[in-house]
Amino acid sequence: MSLWSLDNPAFTDYAFYAGVLAVKVMAMGVITGYYRMTKKAFANPEDAKRLGAKDVKVDADVERVRRAHQNDLENITVFWILGLLFLLTNPSPATARLIFRAYTGSRIGYTILYISGSSLRPGVYIVGVICNVFMVFRIICTFW
Amino acid sequence: MSLWSLDNPAFTDYAFYAGVLAVKVMAMGVITGYYRMTKKAFANPEDAKRLGAKDVKVDADVERVRRAHQNDLENITVFWILGLLFLLTNPSPATARLIFRAYTGSRIGYTILYISGSSLRPGVYIVGVICNVFMVFRIICTFW
Amino acid sequence: MSLWSLDNPAFTDYAFYAGVLAVKVMAMGVITGYYRMTKKAFANPEDAKRLGAKDVKVDADVERVRRAHQNDLENITVFWILGLLFLLTNPSPATARLIFRAYTGSRIGYTILYISGSSLRPGVYIVGVICNVFMVFRIICTFW
Repeated sequence: MSLWSLDNPAFTDYAFYAGVLAVKVMAMGVITGYYRMTKKAFANPEDAKRLGAKDVKVDADVERVRRAHQNDLENITVFWILGLLFLLTNPSPATARLIFRAYTGSRIGYTILYISGSSLRPGVYIVGVICNVFMVFRIICTFW
Repeated sequence: MSLWSLDNPAFTDYAFYAGVLAVKVMAMGVITGYYRMTKKAFANPEDAKRLGAKDVKVDADVERVRRAHQNDLENITVFWILGLLFLLTNPSPATARLIFRAYTGSRIGYTILYISGSSLRPGVYIVGVICNVFMVFRIICTFW
Repeated sequence: MSLWSLDNPAFTDYAFYAGVLAVKVMAMGVITGYYRMTKKAFANPEDAKRLGAKDVKVDADVERVRRAHQNDLENITVFWILGLLFLLTNPSPATARLIFRAYTGSRIGYTILYISGSSLRPGVYIVGVICNVFMVFRIICTFW
């Protein structure tokens, strides 16, 4: 049986959670747009003009959302490739599901804590990092 | 038949358009370099020194290209994974090709409008977003 | 034989080097954290407060590490997808290994030179760009 196959439950779980994380990344664009509108803080003069602001403006809340978005790019792109390669190490479906769920939960929680300015953020962040480190460790040991 | 197979025309279309979008992302690095050179606006002191500028400098046009590049990273990385997973939902080759083409056209048009400062930018942006939303909707429904 | 198969040595090489590059990207997060701590330069007020800094602060060395991290996102995400698609062009295992190794070496060297402020940085950067351009050229020619 091929490991990248719809017969492998770990593979279909990967497809699902990778998709959920894509929604999560896309949501950051929507949230940024919402904050830019309500704060009238635009990055481009043509946007400011069209949307009734006098000039471009940097807003602390918009920057916070953008940092959370950037953190997604730094981490979730890594998960997408690691999750796919991790399947090639033939993990048990239960292990794979646990990791994909923990990672997805960690990223969603992280963003909520980031936007709300909670100091608990690093504790949730580390869960996602552990998932990625575990997967990459298995990949490198397998394909050494 | 495996869906990730060279026998599947949707798969080879994905490979082609994912490659075209990679060229498009790489082109942003070249355009940034071009603007940094012509504007003498460098981010690192060692670059400024080597290339005949007095000091590092922030330039509005360079920042605009960098925002367009950043927007690519926020969106095209999502397309790469969604396009691959979307193939697993067994779309008709015609539907897949339409989406891959619309997405690629949207991203190229978006960057041209961004760099030229056009206020038509959001209208072209939304086409790409719709493609990604459609694909992720199909993926999540299939692998729920 | 499928090209995305553990029987294909180019495929297992891809898995290994893509994993190594994931470690490299994750290391940037650790290095950024280290610099933020030692320089007491945090991006969020809640981090500054918790870690004994008076206020948020921008530090030149932290910004340098962040630019190197950003450059990884702009380039290594492109490698991940191009490497995977390049396998579909049926390269000889020796060619594939050479490219994956050269790319990985280029990226690690680039970051070391970036953080140390060396003006040799562009010479090492170009090696990685050539690898990506070669792969995308093969992909586009194959799936035209």
